[in-house]
This record gives sequence, C-alpha cells and structure tokens, in this order.
Amino acid sequence: MELLKRLSDYVGSEESKFYKTTLFRSDALLLGINCLEAGQVQKPHDHAGQDKFYYVVEGSGRFWLGDRRVTADAGQVVWAPAGLVHGVENEGESRLTLLVGIAPAP
Amino acid sequence: MELLKRLSDYVGSEESKFYKTTLFRSDALLLGINCLEAGQVQKPHDHAGQDKFYYVVEGSGRFWLGDRRVTADAGQVVWAPAGLVHGVENEGESRLTLLVGIAPAP
Repeated sequence: MELLKRLSDYVGSEESKFYKTTLFRSDALLLGINCLEAGQVQKPHDHAGQDKFYYVVEGSGRFWLGDRRVTADAGQVVWAPAGLVHGVENEGESRLTLLVGIAPAP
Repeated sequence: MELLKRLSDYVGSEESKFYKTTLFRSDALLLGINCLEAGQVQKPHDHAGQDKFYYVVEGSGRFWLGDRRVTADAGQVVWAPAGLVHGVENEGESRLTLLVGIAPAP
C-alpha cells in the first residue's frame, strides 16, 4: 500500500459535477479530495454518524453549515460534526480544491 | 462551537520540543497541527487502534513509516495505518507545519 501521495497528482475535474477521489481509506477514516470548478456545487447534505472536515488547499468556497453560510479560502479548515447539514459552492473563478476527511469512513 | 478555523492562527513553536495543538475533536476524529522547527523531531511511535495522516502544509519532513524513511514536502500526504511505527524529523531550515488527523480520536 502506498503511504505517501502528492495531492496535485489526484486533482481532477468533470464538467457535469464536482470531482472527488479517495486518497486513503480505513474503517476509521476516509481521506480524499473534492475539486469544484467555478460555479460547481456540492449540495447541502448530512452524515448521521460521521464527522467531516474540509481543508481548503486552493481557491475559495462558500460553505453551508446548518443555517449558516461561511466563506473559507486556502489555509482554512471547516468542521461539519455528525448530523449537521453541510455543503459547498465555488463562487470564485478558479478551481476549489479541498482535502476532505470523514470519520468513521462511510 | 467554532466550525471554521484558519491554520495560520494556530501555528506555534516551543524551544524544547515540537509544538502541537488541537483544532477540532470528536470521538471519531482528532484534527490538529504539529509544528517542528528546524532540527526538531517527533520520535517514532505507534497507535495500536488509530489511523493517522499528516498533510504537509509548509516545509519538508523526513518521516519514519515502519522500516522506511520518506521525505514529504508541502502538498503531500503521509498515511500511517494503525500499528505502524511512524514519526517525523525536520531536517530542513524552515518550519515544518503539518495538519494531522487521528481516527478514532486518542
């Protein structure tokens, strides 16, 4: 099993929806990347039994967190505890790349 | 509970040992920062029942992963599955800042 990965090797895009891929996975933790091109959206949703974080690697995202909207850019971390509705929209003009962790893994 | 944090607000240093702090914590996941100044070391250790990742935010680290040594710099992710001996040394000349996740939380 490869234990060292460079994020930029896993960045990607799709026209029809945001791009996501898995970097590492165990029962305890799923670690992956979400890439949203300008205008793309990850619709608000929740995970009943899983905590989640987003770390903004590049770009800027407008997040839903329950009934709040917050903007996070490169270097910021968003925490979505289990049960809280969350999602993100790329309102910027460049790619939004997010390192994402979900625990336990879905 | 604050759900949005900027990593750079939590970076720190100590002379006697590497600096660490917690960003977010649940039973499922501990998310924090480790900062190693030039020459500082996180000695090899393991977590019997916890998976761990390091994301290199800035600088470069020389990691132990079982019987391997690997170098990771900004933008790379290191995965240390439960039971694998791991640690990191800052052999560079500038601060090494790591976003670290441990699941489940210790």
